[in-house]
Formats: sequence, structure tokens, C-alpha cells
Amino acid sequence: MTVSAPDIAALSTPAVVVDLAVAKRNVERFQEFADRLGLRVRPHIKTHKLPLMARLQLEAGAIGITCQKVSEAEAMLDGCPEIGDVLITYNILGADKLDHLAALARRVRLSVVADSATVIEGLATRFASEPAPLTVLVECNTGADRCGVGTPAAARDLARLIAARPGLVFGGLMTYPPAGGEAAVQAFMTTAKALIEAEGMAVPTISSGGTPSMMAAAAAPIVSEYRPGTYIYNDRSLVARGACGWDDCALHVLATVVSVPAPNRAIIDAGSKVLTSDLLGLTGYGHVLGRPDIAIDQLSEEHGRLTSTGPIELAVGDRLHIVPNHACVVTNMMDAVHLIGEDGAITAVPVAARGRVV
Amino acid sequence: MTVSAPDIAALSTPAVVVDLAVAKRNVERFQEFADRLGLRVRPHIKTHKLPLMARLQLEAGAIGITCQKVSEAEAMLDGCPEIGDVLITYNILGADKLDHLAALARRVRLSVVADSATVIEGLATRFASEPAPLTVLVECNTGADRCGVGTPAAARDLARLIAARPGLVFGGLMTYPPAGGEAAVQAFMTTAKALIEAEGMAVPTISSGGTPSMMAAAAAPIVSEYRPGTYIYNDRSLVARGACGWDDCALHVLATVVSVPAPNRAIIDAGSKVLTSDLLGLTGYGHVLGRPDIAIDQLSEEHGRLTSTGPIELAVGDRLHIVPNHACVVTNMMDAVHLIGEDGAITAVPVAARGRVV
Repeated sequence: MTVSAPDIAALSTPAVVVDLAVAKRNVERFQEFADRLGLRVRPHIKTHKLPLMARLQLEAGAIGITCQKVSEAEAMLDGCPEIGDVLITYNILGADKLDHLAALARRVRLSVVADSATVIEGLATRFASEPAPLTVLVECNTGADRCGVGTPAAARDLARLIAARPGLVFGGLMTYPPAGGEAAVQAFMTTAKALIEAEGMAVPTISSGGTPSMMAAAAAPIVSEYRPGTYIYNDRSLVARGACGWDDCALHVLATVVSVPAPNRAIIDAGSKVLTSDLLGLTGYGHVLGRPDIAIDQLSEEHGRLTSTGPIELAVGDRLHIVPNHACVVTNMMDAVHLIGEDGAITAVPVAARGRVV
Repeated sequence: MTVSAPDIAALSTPAVVVDLAVAKRNVERFQEFADRLGLRVRPHIKTHKLPLMARLQLEAGAIGITCQKVSEAEAMLDGCPEIGDVLITYNILGADKLDHLAALARRVRLSVVADSATVIEGLATRFASEPAPLTVLVECNTGADRCGVGTPAAARDLARLIAARPGLVFGGLMTYPPAGGEAAVQAFMTTAKALIEAEGMAVPTISSGGTPSMMAAAAAPIVSEYRPGTYIYNDRSLVARGACGWDDCALHVLATVVSVPAPNRAIIDAGSKVLTSDLLGLTGYGHVLGRPDIAIDQLSEEHGRLTSTGPIELAVGDRLHIVPNHACVVTNMMDAVHLIGEDGAITAVPVAARGRVV
């Protein structure tokens, strides 16, 4: 991260800083890879929650964006009207959310997912009276054991239900793969596609995603669209998996040492309200750049505790750059992040889709 | 929680709901206990982050509030000008924060803590030119191993430093005790007080705090002021410690089942962006009221995974009330919480001090 020292010194800590040049390089690198495979890229905005980052992704070649919640999509479109295509990878339920979804469908090319007849029934009823039908993909469980139908036959049955409703159009299949699950994705999707095509229906899109597996996408060639999120910023969890290096981490938490109460212990002003308690299977709550000897071994809400194997050699007032375990959840904690432009200037940018949980 | 069913059914989920009557009962119960002990109550606002809850605490008899960060205190005073006394239990460092602190000191009776000569030096320099001196307490480590001086003699040395500076006034001693640490608090504070008094200085306040230990406060009679936070809402961690029952939990997360992909598994629309990943030593991420057989065993950002020892017997669209592991961090996730008044009416209230980390 190349920073203009006087600017960064003026930031009140804790602060989240994002190096735009690194983010851009990360986006372009995956886009080039996907282009070579003929894979469409539809980034998940959950990592940045920023219209300007969606614009950067579209300019690099993304076909649209992925959101998890309707309110996220609204915030992104408000800030980046050039977004032309949105996929919401969530079961949308309830009158209030369906009304928002219908309003959204009048603004943008929109698709959603469903994994049950109940969700399809709600969508079909609401969209029966809309000017245009809604595109619905069937979510499939390829091993992550979260949402999704469990068998290709169940996917075919839901595709049939969607196609039978005048308010809906069957858009294809979607999955969030388990780590290293490309073979499972390929097997599930190949069977499901064949079953659906056997009924005379087309499967326009097969959408998979997730930064951890993205460079293995070629191992599931049936996939036509990929939805990486974290790749734009990267984080400690991805460095730990070998997916990137520290120089590829565009997002840092800037923190100040507020206490050095013992020779091997220091306390920083970033706790779980910034770094979050997400472990993602790791030990400790982040990586202090340049200090691999330090563990962030305990967080309370406003304090992070640093311990070292030897003397900690930090003084009250020292500032540290920390790569968090999980970048996406950190941007959700902050009203604004500080972007470091390619000229080194720092701009505070409100996190437009922060806290959009409905 | 007594709720008006039509009102609660109209809330878009996930939502945080707070039963005002339960919160009030919790506040009054501890206030009465503290009054009997002659212990002053200075609640920590980190749990609710709401001016109206601070007002409720003051009306019950609190002498003022505790905040962790300067920006939290600003938000609380903006929303509740009748707050007359604020303690910031944090080492305040840096020109920007010291300027905010000085502005705050002109609005309210203010005190802060310090645990090093560096922090005291910064405070003293900034307040030398202010119209009134700033009250500073020395933070002591009584076993929680976060911030705080490690010995009574070190506390005495810092008290001496504070008292020597014209911009500052020595206000006493402060600690955040470890679980069950009343004996350690009593021992540390008794020695420190004697050492400081031996130098001819008074120790006006000895401040301790934390909901987990609050009903054991009598075991550390040297303490003059107590700073409970979570007691107003309670949460699963406090039920697990035996500090309260489920009926004493004023805050619930209302969530909807969005998928039932397997007979013993269901997915709700509240993930780590609402419940947070805080475990506080527990297993699982919350308690589904009325369903002790269910574990919330996995969270991603927008999904919570529920598993049961037997058939889960939930349907897509079902709504659940969940007591989170840790109430304080949940209020920090939400732009607004929904208050259920004593008449059953529901009001959305912006979380004024949410995200105030600087």
C-alpha cells in the first residue's frame, strides 16, 4: 500500500483504509482470468458495499452485480445507476420485501433465486400483476449445506414450477460451492441441466461463486457465471489459504496503540466493533503488517489485545496497519472508509450499503 | 415479552426488538440493589446506545453515564441533554480526539481515565489552556489483563503525575474486574487508596463495573461507583452464567425462516450482520426462544443455520425470536431498533451512538 504519510497521519483511528490501486489490480486480474475461460463475472458487492467499486468492476468487464438483500441492491443502484443487471442470491419472502423487489424490477434487469415451492409461490403471486416477469434461478446445495435443493431432481422440479407461472421465467441454476468443491459443482450441475433440458427447458445461466475457489473455476466448466466478492480487497483468511499475498490486501484497519501495560502486551483502539469476531477458522483476529510475531489474541468491543512471543516493542501512540480476518464484515462496521487514490490523496467515502440487512 | 401481534407481524426481518417494560424492570432492579449498598450507578451506554435509555437510567437514579469513546459521548449528549455527568473509560490520545474531548468538557461534567504517563501528558498539555481542569482517574488492572496499571504503587505514581498538572484533577481509581474478581478488586483498591492517601491526596471515586459481577458488588465494599452495561437488556451469555432468566432478556432478534433444506436443518435471515460472531465462551450463536432443541450452529453474513437434535419442524416463513449471545454488539449492527412500549405499540428508534468508534 503506497500512502501519503501526512494524509494518513491525520486520520482519527480506528479507521478502515482501502488502497484503490490494489483493489483495481485485484479486480482486473480475476476479470482477465475469467475472460480467458469465457466465464462471465458478476461480483458480489457485500465486500465493498460501495457504488464506486461496483463501477470499477463494471468498467473492468463485469456483467452486473450480486447482492444478498433487496435493500443492498437499492443502495447500490441509487449510487451507481449504470448498474444494468442485478442478481439477488437470496430467498425473498414477505409482502414488504416483495413490494421492494417489484419496484427494483422496474429499474434494472433483475433476477433472484429460490430453493422451495413456498418462495416460488410468493414470487409468482406478486409478479403475476407486474408488467414483466421476474427471472428466477434455482439455488442448489453442492456441499456447503446452507440453502439450496439437495438433488438435481429437486432442482428440475422447481425449474418446472417456475416455468409454469406466468409471472416468472426460469433463469438457470445457482450455487455457493464448498471450499474445493468444483468437482461436486460440475457433477450436480451437469445432471440437473440434463434433467431440465430433457423437459424442453433451457438453462441459460449456471452461476457459482466465492473468492476462495475462483482460481479453480476451470475445474467446473459447466459454470457460466462466477460471483467473487472478497477478491477485490482480499484479507487474512485468503492469505492463509494461499490465495493471495499481503501486498494484495487492499483493505487495512489503521489502529493506535493506547496502552502497553506489560512488556509483551499492548492494547489497540480497534476491537470487535471494527475487526469483528469472525475467525474463519483462524487463530487471532488479524495480522499486524510487518509484525508476524504479534497475535491479536483477544477483542472486546473497543479494545484489541496484542501479545508477542518476545518483547512487544510498541509505544503508546504507535499506529499499526492490520489486515483483518474477513474484509466483508469489517466494511459493514464502518459508516465510511478512507480511499487512498492513485495519487496518494485520501477521501472518506460513506459505505452506502452498510447495515442493509432486510 | 408482551407484544402486539399485528405490529410485530408488520416488521421486516431481520429486526431487533426491545421490550421497554423489561428494560425498565432490569434497570430499576439493579438501582434498588445498589441504593441499598450505597453504591452509585453509572451505566455504560454501549449496550443500548440510545439517549432514551440513558434517560430511563437517570430517572431510575443513575448519577451519569459511562462511554468508551468520545464520539459515543457526543451522540448521547446530543440526544439527551439532561445527562450531566460523563465518564469516558478510555485512554484518549491524539490531537483530534483531545480537541473533541475539550469541547465535550465545556458541555458536561466530564472525567476520563489514563493508565500511562504518555496519556496523562497528552491530556495535561491539551487542558492546560482550557477554562477548567479535566478530572482523570487511573485505570487499574485487577486481573482482566486488558488496560490498566499492574500494581497499586504504579497507580499511586500516576495519581501523583495527574495531581501535579494544573490542567488536570485526580479523580480516583477505575477498573474493569475479571469475572468473579471482587476479592482482587478489594485488595488492589485498598492498597492503592492507602498509598495515595499517604501522599495527602484524596481518592474521591473508586469505579468498578460489569454486569456479570454486579450482584457480587458487596464483596468489594471499597468500590463507590458501579458501571453495568448489559444489565438493561441481558442476553444469552448472562442467562448461561445464571445472572438472569429468558424473561429478563429485553432484546430479541426477530428472524424469518427462509429455507428448510433438510429435515433437521433450517436457515434464517439473520446472520453475522445481525447476531455477530461473538461467542463469549458459548457454543452457537443465540437461543431460539421456545426451542431449546435448536442450535444456531453456523453464521454467514446474511444466513443463520439452525440444526436440531430431532426433526426441526419449521416451515419457510416462520418467524423466530432469538436471544443473542451478546446484546451490546447486536445493537451496533442496526441503524434502528424497534421498541415495544408498555402499550404494545412499536416504534423504530435510530441507534444514535451506533458505529461511534473514534
